[in-house]
Amino acid sequence: MEIKPIAHIHTDFPQKFGLPRQSGLIEELEGRIVFEKEYRDPEAVRGIEGYDYLWLLWGFEVGEDEGFRPTVRPPRLGGNERMGVFATRSPFRPNHIGLSSVRLTEVKITKESGPILFVSGIDMKHNTPIYDIKPYLSYTDSHMGVRSGFTDELSSNALKVDFPEELLEILPENKRQGAVSVLCSDIRPSYHVNRNGLGKYGLSYAGYNIRFTVDGEDLRVTEVTES
Amino acid sequence: MEIKPIAHIHTDFPQKFGLPRQSGLIEELEGRIVFEKEYRDPEAVRGIEGYDYLWLLWGFEVGEDEGFRPTVRPPRLGGNERMGVFATRSPFRPNHIGLSSVRLTEVKITKESGPILFVSGIDMKHNTPIYDIKPYLSYTDSHMGVRSGFTDELSSNALKVDFPEELLEILPENKRQGAVSVLCSDIRPSYHVNRNGLGKYGLSYAGYNIRFTVDGEDLRVTEVTES
Repeated sequence: MEIKPIAHIHTDFPQKFGLPRQSGLIEELEGRIVFEKEYRDPEAVRGIEGYDYLWLLWGFEVGEDEGFRPTVRPPRLGGNERMGVFATRSPFRPNHIGLSSVRLTEVKITKESGPILFVSGIDMKHNTPIYDIKPYLSYTDSHMGVRSGFTDELSSNALKVDFPEELLEILPENKRQGAVSVLCSDIRPSYHVNRNGLGKYGLSYAGYNIRFTVDGEDLRVTEVTES
Repeated sequence: MEIKPIAHIHTDFPQKFGLPRQSGLIEELEGRIVFEKEYRDPEAVRGIEGYDYLWLLWGFEVGEDEGFRPTVRPPRLGGNERMGVFATRSPFRPNHIGLSSVRLTEVKITKESGPILFVSGIDMKHNTPIYDIKPYLSYTDSHMGVRSGFTDELSSNALKVDFPEELLEILPENKRQGAVSVLCSDIRPSYHVNRNGLGKYGLSYAGYNIRFTVDGEDLRVTEVTES
């Protein structure tokens, strides 16, 4: 079956590094969904403002297809343990479709681009193609307290973030909380974590490069520049 | 993007009529997911038994593509009111991908067909192509009590089902509860409901034809034959 993008999402992440591993983990991260020309009709979203959450089906960006591999190494398991691909949300799967629930915060009807959907809790790179938008139906989509495999046992490793005031103020005010939350959530792939000694990293976010070091559980921002 | 089926699901519904409108509404309805040849590797589902629910991305069967129409008439609104297609779960959308959460009841490793996943709460026709299977992650997928548009206000119209014992016993024992639940849930499209007088219907289910009449809120099964 051939599928084609109905929209693209604009986010603050030009690169994959820094993206949360799932949607909804960092509520402050926002996105704007802009429809492709042929779907720019306000009628197509009539009634959508009645929903708090939307499902997005979107396209993973993965490298050349290297054929089917039945297992993957989930980053949350440290990258050492193998799990069946269908028991994970890894992008390395036969069809490159991601599934995310995002909060709908605003619907804006514009002259130039038709309806624009503002959402939060995103986990996609800037300009990711969107293949479908569906309303989140609580009565059929929500299952609380069900067993969720290995993700049940893992807590996220929060880091202690030291973001010096003078560096934080370089960021636009409405981007600051998002940046701190991203850094705090420890975005480093587990297998990159240097357990002994200082690691140096750079995050591209909202048009800025944020350089930081991590020593144990202490993250320190060292530089913020426009990119 | 070209996507291809990774599996097909076997269910008791050779036709669309009788299918619940969403997944999980009738827990007794079961399906068996059989992988395509190239994915028949037990490794591909390693760890999946740790999840209570799975997401299925599957293919809607719709007629010839008649081009994009921005609104649809949801059956649950009686078929008279128009809603934006992206504010509904209607199959008449640009990319024909359905999204369902189903309960995983058993994983069976077979010699002939590789791993078979037994699921319940299905809402697909027999032999529906499955494009992806993802684990349901409670911490990111579950949102209780959120606003869900027009579906919040609608209650399902339960019918009073009279299924004579001698007819019910024609069905295999493990299919009886499912049949009663399907009939009870009022599967008739709202715009087909004849409000004045008797309506006659036929349901194909689990290899049987179930004929019934509906008069007001009373449903009466009149005949059960093997199909």
